Amino acid sequence: MAEILKNINCPKDLRKLDLEELKQVVQELRKFIIDIVATKEGHLGASLGVVELTVALHYIFNTPEDLLVWDVGHQAYGHKILTGRRDIFDTNRQLNGISGFPKREESEYDTFGVGHSSTSISAALGMAIASNLKAEFEKQHIAVIGDASIASGMAFEGLNHAGVTKANLLVILNDNAIGIDPSVGALKEYLTKARVGYKPARDNIIEALNFQYFGPVDGHDLEGLLKTLKEMKQIKGPKFLHVITRKGKGLKKAEEDQVKYHAPGKFEPTTGELLKYDTNGLPIKYQDVFGLTLVELARKNKKIIGITPAMPTGSSLKFMMKAFPERAFDVGIAEQHAVTLSAGMATQGFVVYCAIYSTFLQRAYDQLIHDVALQNLPVVFCLDRAGLVGEDGATHHGVFDIAYARPIPNLIIAAPRNETELRNLLYTAQLDLKSPMIIRYPRGRGVLKEWELPFKKVEIGKAECLKEGFEIAVLSLGNMAGNVENAIKNLNKTAQEKIAHYDMRFVKPLDKKILNKIFGKFSKIITVEDGVINGGFGSAILEYASNLSYKGDIELLGIPDEFIEQGSVDQLQEIAKINVQGIQQKLESII
Amino acid sequence: MAEILKNINCPKDLRKLDLEELKQVVQELRKFIIDIVATKEGHLGASLGVVELTVALHYIFNTPEDLLVWDVGHQAYGHKILTGRRDIFDTNRQLNGISGFPKREESEYDTFGVGHSSTSISAALGMAIASNLKAEFEKQHIAVIGDASIASGMAFEGLNHAGVTKANLLVILNDNAIGIDPSVGALKEYLTKARVGYKPARDNIIEALNFQYFGPVDGHDLEGLLKTLKEMKQIKGPKFLHVITRKGKGLKKAEEDQVKYHAPGKFEPTTGELLKYDTNGLPIKYQDVFGLTLVELARKNKKIIGITPAMPTGSSLKFMMKAFPERAFDVGIAEQHAVTLSAGMATQGFVVYCAIYSTFLQRAYDQLIHDVALQNLPVVFCLDRAGLVGEDGATHHGVFDIAYARPIPNLIIAAPRNETELRNLLYTAQLDLKSPMIIRYPRGRGVLKEWELPFKKVEIGKAECLKEGFEIAVLSLGNMAGNVENAIKNLNKTAQEKIAHYDMRFVKPLDKKILNKIFGKFSKIITVEDGVINGGFGSAILEYASNLSYKGDIELLGIPDEFIEQGSVDQLQEIAKINVQGIQQKLESII
Repeated sequence: MAEILKNINCPKDLRKLDLEELKQVVQELRKFIIDIVATKEGHLGASLGVVELTVALHYIFNTPEDLLVWDVGHQAYGHKILTGRRDIFDTNRQLNGISGFPKREESEYDTFGVGHSSTSISAALGMAIASNLKAEFEKQHIAVIGDASIASGMAFEGLNHAGVTKANLLVILNDNAIGIDPSVGALKEYLTKARVGYKPARDNIIEALNFQYFGPVDGHDLEGLLKTLKEMKQIKGPKFLHVITRKGKGLKKAEEDQVKYHAPGKFEPTTGELLKYDTNGLPIKYQDVFGLTLVELARKNKKIIGITPAMPTGSSLKFMMKAFPERAFDVGIAEQHAVTLSAGMATQGFVVYCAIYSTFLQRAYDQLIHDVALQNLPVVFCLDRAGLVGEDGATHHGVFDIAYARPIPNLIIAAPRNETELRNLLYTAQLDLKSPMIIRYPRGRGVLKEWELPFKKVEIGKAECLKEGFEIAVLSLGNMAGNVENAIKNLNKTAQEKIAHYDMRFVKPLDKKILNKIFGKFSKIITVEDGVINGGFGSAILEYASNLSYKGDIELLGIPDEFIEQGSVDQLQEIAKINVQGIQQKLESII
Repeated sequence: MAEILKNINCPKDLRKLDLEELKQVVQELRKFIIDIVATKEGHLGASLGVVELTVALHYIFNTPEDLLVWDVGHQAYGHKILTGRRDIFDTNRQLNGISGFPKREESEYDTFGVGHSSTSISAALGMAIASNLKAEFEKQHIAVIGDASIASGMAFEGLNHAGVTKANLLVILNDNAIGIDPSVGALKEYLTKARVGYKPARDNIIEALNFQYFGPVDGHDLEGLLKTLKEMKQIKGPKFLHVITRKGKGLKKAEEDQVKYHAPGKFEPTTGELLKYDTNGLPIKYQDVFGLTLVELARKNKKIIGITPAMPTGSSLKFMMKAFPERAFDVGIAEQHAVTLSAGMATQGFVVYCAIYSTFLQRAYDQLIHDVALQNLPVVFCLDRAGLVGEDGATHHGVFDIAYARPIPNLIIAAPRNETELRNLLYTAQLDLKSPMIIRYPRGRGVLKEWELPFKKVEIGKAECLKEGFEIAVLSLGNMAGNVENAIKNLNKTAQEKIAHYDMRFVKPLDKKILNKIFGKFSKIITVEDGVINGGFGSAILEYASNLSYKGDIELLGIPDEFIEQGSVDQLQEIAKINVQGIQQKLESII
């Protein structure tokens, strides 16, 4: 049988095929994804689950004239491969390669850039209303959204609006009962009933919102999908197709362990066997320092609660969910709710650790201000994935948190420089904290061999001098301390002696005492952070310096005023000049 | 008949009364609210609508042990009066008086501070879960939420989580079919069907989320309410009561014109007749400059679309909704959706003006970053109520916008100093804009007599010198220009000549050309903004100054690092020292 996929350069090529050939494309596409992800890494399970759906959508609809929006985009690998990116798919998620998510700049088939969840209905509805205004009444607009994503409030807002429009919107629910971790919530339970054939006698929850509801249908039955989509294409107005799929479909191990195979790393493509990495001797991941320390603290402090919006595995809150299921909650993709729920619990005297990726706290910015900080409730925000996160790219970098949190009164903002510091901050946060606190820490592994030292209370707002000097003071935040230390080590002895290094530890409150000394002693100051320069940590130093009419030079290193794309963390830190070499060059240029 | 209300100092007093006496309390409470709001102003209609419900809740439930959360809080006047604040209720919304919204510091009966909508379910659920952990299984937790607020995504997130818990949560839907403006959306249509007795044969949308559903019941039938609430108190787990009320109930004119009587200003208490203010000769409101100019522009530019999340009246988008109903959308309390919908429309070549209060854009911060700025889509955000808003207080001040928007790449941030500038910015925004843009302007009236001048294109990123000088440069943003001008006028002639005044107009991009000149000429610079100092406009000037190693003094005037409570705008600007006198004193102290 001749290969077909290699000749599919755009969906038009697909539309020339017959059913049997399409079925072959499905097989080839699945294999293609597995083979590349096996060696190049990336998100696997989600894309395997929608191979039939992807082929069917591009076959039935006239993309790119018809507008297809993928929610989140983990599942869009098949879409990318069928829309002209087959031969560069092996550059997926790499620096200067293609993005791991749909991206407008990359292809006319990527109608809307995604990465964060639950935006597809709003975006596709906007397009559909626009088409009506342009009198393009035949144009189709399709949002493909997962069952974890549709439970987010934003998706509900989109449905609620769409239901009172005449927009030509097709919402496809890709129901595999799992996001990154298994889906949760009442809507999920409702959808599960629908999966097994439960039919409310009157309208279901979707029909109640004025959508025409179809399904559930088997998302791996290509013929059935083609038939259903063809019929639905004729229907005007908001319509909804409930498709049941299996995440990881076609790779046995991926179907069996869907959480692990969401983004499995390298694996053997035929068996799915994960490549074993020797992690012995490597430092622990920051997320595990959080997860394990929280369990340790929760054992003694019965007031501790843990909350995560849909990231039990990624945040390692899973450890506490296992140890204390009644005190640890995965609330689903619901950052707004997670934050205000935490606030509600805090009013009753509980110490809530709300574990959210830095980039996702953007979703609950108002709740952080209005429900937590304004009421000065001592909720502890554990912001994993702060700084540049690497291959997930522009949508996922946690580079705005310092700048967006710093303007908020009452808020404490801390960044540990290593695992032990994180541990001690977590410990400190449950000792009679009077204000909300953000603890931000990076993706990936720490830097220490032994991190599980006895707890020490951290004085809030206290910086630390890591190295004395007499000419230049480098003020670093969080794990940037390591880069600075290494940069200094690379200098010659004379240069080294000139440079003092301070780990500021807290963006807020600033250690004014130590800053007063620094301003008195040094005429050159460099700040180093892995967040945006505009309004960030360095900016806080500038503000305080201007208060004191400091006349020395202050230079700010950090993320410049542009979105940073995907690449390895090292590559991206190099671009921002906050890697060891970048800092070293800066120091050399000044001395 | 002896007055009863004057002896009700807490809900315990209420619980001693019989039904007839309670009915009398209802009458007295309604009159009390009307009489005070008639002279002291405030929110009227919402509280009038829930008088019976308020009495019933405090009668049946054991507040403050049972925890009652009011959503938004417009409707909580009766609650305040019955919970010990009757005699200070005439200080409502005034400086040092009581807040117009529930507030934890104010009373143990105010279990959760509100102001922004749709937080009550999450907060009450957090409390309810906390009670279960404390083994306080009899404790009741009640969220009272309006039909406009429950349609917001955040409320859905709360319901979706609550439905899979055993939390003792009672959600009361106060369904009056209106928020500030009439409610919209598919859920609203569904609820309206429920109002007229439509019963789905199987579960309704609320039951689908695992709530026990009761109602709809008449919210003005006190006896019925008491009976229903008493019964429901016995039921464990998540439960939902649908109550039909009439906004403005008991004051005929308020019932008839619910939008106007949401917050009517002063009126005659028996007839409801609004006091006539002579607004002749007063400058126009900024919101009307927006609303009217948009219609004017939309007439010529068919690509213009207007969107508001539930603020057609407050933002004056109502003018466009009337003139071009097919191109102007009220999407309800759905800021997240509003922003991403705008982004979707922008991908199709439309020029979308998204009108959101500054404080409410906090709700769509991630969408601003992830859906708009990252894709560099030229959506125009019209941020009304920027700066200190006065009597609405801490929850509503639009003081964070500059600081939270400035870190976002691609975004243009402008602030007009008067009505004509606003008009010209709105005009400029639809002339081939290549990036998203924020235009922020204050609540209330402008400063000009004639504002409707022919359109002039504004050069993006161009500041303006309003007055030359040679010693001190004052850089102001937006309407702070007026305060600065007046402050300078109050100085003596010699002092006046020393001071230069620049309207920077754009926070981003900064006018570097003019700043280079300023840094070259002046050794003292003062920045003035009505936003937070931390990370704000002045901070942007500091960052650029540090880039150029500027050695002069820069002082930042703006909102300090604390939440500012309610009061008149003048009073609050005085507290922040950005009123005319504050700026004047600063200038005098330097010269």
